[in-house]
Amino acid sequence: MRITSFPITTLRDAPSEAEIISHKLLLQGGYIRRVGSGIYAYMPLMLKVIEKISSIIDKELIKIGCSKLLLPQLHPCELWKKSGRWEGYTAGEGIMFNLKDRQERAYGLAPTHEEVITNIASEIINSYKQLPLCYYQIQTKFRDEIRPRFGLMRGREFIMKDGYSFHDSENDLKNFYKKMEKSYENIFKNCGLETIGVDADSGAIGGAASKEFMVTAYSGEDSILFTKSGSYAANLEKAVSFPKENKPLINFDQELIKTPNQKTIEDICKCNNLDSTQIVKVILYLGEFEDKSKLPIAACVRGDQFVNEIKIFNLLNEIYDSNLINLSIIENNSSIKENLLDPPIGYLGPDISDEIINQNSTWEKRWMRIVDYSASKLESFISGANQVNFHKYFKSWKSLDNTFITSDIRNAQEGDFISFDKKETLIEKKGIEIGHIFQLGQKYSEKLNAKFSNSNGGLENLWMGCYGIGVTRLAQAAIEQNHDKDGICWPIQIAPFNVVLIPTNFKDSIQRNLSEEIYIEFQKNNIDVLLDDRDERAGVKFKDADLIGIPFRIIIGRDAINNEVELVSRSKKSNIKVSMNNILELFINESKLMYN
Amino acid sequence: MRITSFPITTLRDAPSEAEIISHKLLLQGGYIRRVGSGIYAYMPLMLKVIEKISSIIDKELIKIGCSKLLLPQLHPCELWKKSGRWEGYTAGEGIMFNLKDRQERAYGLAPTHEEVITNIASEIINSYKQLPLCYYQIQTKFRDEIRPRFGLMRGREFIMKDGYSFHDSENDLKNFYKKMEKSYENIFKNCGLETIGVDADSGAIGGAASKEFMVTAYSGEDSILFTKSGSYAANLEKAVSFPKENKPLINFDQELIKTPNQKTIEDICKCNNLDSTQIVKVILYLGEFEDKSKLPIAACVRGDQFVNEIKIFNLLNEIYDSNLINLSIIENNSSIKENLLDPPIGYLGPDISDEIINQNSTWEKRWMRIVDYSASKLESFISGANQVNFHKYFKSWKSLDNTFITSDIRNAQEGDFISFDKKETLIEKKGIEIGHIFQLGQKYSEKLNAKFSNSNGGLENLWMGCYGIGVTRLAQAAIEQNHDKDGICWPIQIAPFNVVLIPTNFKDSIQRNLSEEIYIEFQKNNIDVLLDDRDERAGVKFKDADLIGIPFRIIIGRDAINNEVELVSRSKKSNIKVSMNNILELFINESKLMYN
Repeated sequence: MRITSFPITTLRDAPSEAEIISHKLLLQGGYIRRVGSGIYAYMPLMLKVIEKISSIIDKELIKIGCSKLLLPQLHPCELWKKSGRWEGYTAGEGIMFNLKDRQERAYGLAPTHEEVITNIASEIINSYKQLPLCYYQIQTKFRDEIRPRFGLMRGREFIMKDGYSFHDSENDLKNFYKKMEKSYENIFKNCGLETIGVDADSGAIGGAASKEFMVTAYSGEDSILFTKSGSYAANLEKAVSFPKENKPLINFDQELIKTPNQKTIEDICKCNNLDSTQIVKVILYLGEFEDKSKLPIAACVRGDQFVNEIKIFNLLNEIYDSNLINLSIIENNSSIKENLLDPPIGYLGPDISDEIINQNSTWEKRWMRIVDYSASKLESFISGANQVNFHKYFKSWKSLDNTFITSDIRNAQEGDFISFDKKETLIEKKGIEIGHIFQLGQKYSEKLNAKFSNSNGGLENLWMGCYGIGVTRLAQAAIEQNHDKDGICWPIQIAPFNVVLIPTNFKDSIQRNLSEEIYIEFQKNNIDVLLDDRDERAGVKFKDADLIGIPFRIIIGRDAINNEVELVSRSKKSNIKVSMNNILELFINESKLMYN
Repeated sequence: MRITSFPITTLRDAPSEAEIISHKLLLQGGYIRRVGSGIYAYMPLMLKVIEKISSIIDKELIKIGCSKLLLPQLHPCELWKKSGRWEGYTAGEGIMFNLKDRQERAYGLAPTHEEVITNIASEIINSYKQLPLCYYQIQTKFRDEIRPRFGLMRGREFIMKDGYSFHDSENDLKNFYKKMEKSYENIFKNCGLETIGVDADSGAIGGAASKEFMVTAYSGEDSILFTKSGSYAANLEKAVSFPKENKPLINFDQELIKTPNQKTIEDICKCNNLDSTQIVKVILYLGEFEDKSKLPIAACVRGDQFVNEIKIFNLLNEIYDSNLINLSIIENNSSIKENLLDPPIGYLGPDISDEIINQNSTWEKRWMRIVDYSASKLESFISGANQVNFHKYFKSWKSLDNTFITSDIRNAQEGDFISFDKKETLIEKKGIEIGHIFQLGQKYSEKLNAKFSNSNGGLENLWMGCYGIGVTRLAQAAIEQNHDKDGICWPIQIAPFNVVLIPTNFKDSIQRNLSEEIYIEFQKNNIDVLLDDRDERAGVKFKDADLIGIPFRIIIGRDAINNEVELVSRSKKSNIKVSMNNILELFINESKLMYN
């Protein structure tokens, strides 16, 4: 391509709206342009990156027998009502854009396609002989994000690869899931990325097992916890661990402790000579269900630990028939006034009385009390006295009249152990999720009545897996991992071009002719080459080339008269003078090194 | 590809919902599946056709210097309000799906991208030195069609190629438009289609000149009028012609004619010995504007002619500042009762009184009277007497007190002349519109403030063109043009596969080995080959191959033992026995013939 017909539209200044470096570089390099909040146009350079990633994905997925299709983006609400996800995805904190057509029929703008593909599968799959089958697509998806940010990282319109597999047994699903895991590792490696695979929460998608693929980067929004040996890796939402031992609370002689103005666990520890592992903190939540019921929750964790709301969310969904739509901390004053009678906020204890729930409130009239394993193991502990300005000594959990559900509801953290033997501890890093694979099981096939006849002639629900890659997010994550102060340093595998030819003065006929010669020779050899044929100063061209991050640059300058040019590596900044006769061979050799 | 991992899911019976043959074949061949009204999933076979069409488009457009990008599908309403199209596209008979996000901000689901691209152009184009520029994309578009039908022909979600060019002068725009016209002709020819280019109405897109590209087919929804010589071609909405001469009305001696129960022009002619060219019929319309004003219209055409509502629509948009949103015949009883006082429907004359417009109505209080050229040329004529059961003789248009706008508001029809000299007459055919190119001029750049500095240093609005191809519609139109009683006969250029290998018994190891050998050899030669490796009866395989319409089939049957196979052409049904050693060469030669 020539820049004169493949316009490069870099910006002189870094746009102020960008919060992280990759977002800034995408905007400044002219890769994307903002059209609305969380909505971007992919300019020609960006589309080339997307196409390269897509063909890497295609290649790997076809290898394991997947076939590519394209599903619609507008989904009739009826399908999502069948799966039971319409309310959760559209109401409250839902993330599905939705609309009504001129006939007042409701549609969602697809963030994911389990419903549509399962419905199609129910129509086309009859027999176990047709299985396994895996369909995938690469397509624009929509999410009405609460807070779109970081450019393509958390956009409202973005490109995903999503795939769905169908099996005649759980075993076959598990085998295929393993194949897909390997395929994902290949894809990310072939994109030139360093990733880490972690056990993950299945979230609103549901299912038995799931794994996330993370690009490690400081700006990552996700926390990953893993051991040095690689024996364990999970994301924060999912990670399970053993926290450090508590300090036993012995010979504590006060029944009631006066704690005015002691606002934090730290304050209480300091003023009363306590350790945070000796305290139980109680946080109040409200769970709102699809059937409109509202459940007040008292969550109890050890003073040095933090509540993991995803774990509470999943726990409630497991216990109750109705889907949980929303889980929020009870902290809104007007909500407290309306539903609770004088709650001793700041001084809550696990035995907080059911009687403080206002009889006129629409909430359930009893607290659901959940206590984290690590807190439940405390023999005796200090917690709020349910009386303003007072904490108190609890002799044991058993001594309380209330019923507690014991479960893992805390965040794992750096330094925690992964097993009883305490041999390995967790390390924490930030990561960007770019892929996620799920064993869905029969969740969707059951709801959408997608059956097949098995080898015994019986009808059975299809076994399903689903597999996502954030294509546009992957592109941006690659920049987080590969840039320097001058701009992007694309991995050659997904760079928009492999090499840019820069004649320092395109008006010079010797330089121009030599450039054209190389351009044609490279094109003949199927090398993705960009020719900077602009009538611009060399400095402008170099700066643009640095910013947009093409892996190699060939400078056709004053030595063109001697048939000599320069090959420069973008990331290494290395620089080789070479005669015109050898440039193709040298380039091919140098670029091969980058592929490995 | 092997069918076992690239599943073919044909249906035994023709689906009853399909109204035209191409729709039926797409469903029955397993190319598409219906997900909702006007919403389809493109199954793997269909996606391959779409990809082939897309790459033919890419190739031609890159040749003329276009660059490919991808614009968002969600458009903030602000952009469409700037261009003045938001109301027209979303209210009343609008076709843009629209929604509000969680912040209650309004968005449209893009049916077209003039606003978004012009806004981007305003940001990245500064100087005439950057021009001309042409961006295009291939993308899913949305239209809330009143009556989705015919599968992909009139869907609510469909794939379009849309391109937008920017120029520093009208002249440069016109030159590029000519290039694009040629490019379009190449694209359709390279897709193996027969098309005809016709002058067209610019519709809601607007602009100076536009041309449609039509695939001729009986099931076409558009009428095309053209001369045998090719000197003129236009669609019905746009076509201009001279109708046959009227029969002069001489020595007519009645002032008032009693015409009870004479309901049609034919009746009146028969009962009163008149010719339909001697009559003027009056049809009442109501125009509704974006500024909410409502204009009653009396449209007068010769008795043998038909009103062209698009021409009236465009005329009103030209005359008035506010955009016309809707034009409808006044025929609704309740609307008539509320707004008109005893209108003599069936006996209307061009001098219909303004006084019958109810003073309490929200309509304008005067008729806008429009008379078609052919009617305006009548010296004297018969028309309604504005009195039930009576028509009357009109001596001349001049003798009437009313003001008339004279314009072309009739449909051209077969047999009309295209010029005064009456040398050539029009032929009418049905066609399917698959492409449309427009000279937009400065309409959008002016509204969206997209300027460039010209060579004199002055600021000027960009000159624009826009260029569409209905990709999914093209695919289906190709089937309307290429099928037989057994199924689809794809042009080889856009067929999902070029050849299908059919071992009649895949369990037979000789057949299987020979099939695999050919499969591998063809793949090595970059031939798009499908291997029917199913354990099915030969009859089932043949029937499927006919239905899905792969241009060539190689049958590996009983003669496999002698290293002999059969090459069959899908459309010609010809059949050549050939030894294994020659099959590749023969296939390449035969398929080359199809490309030309």
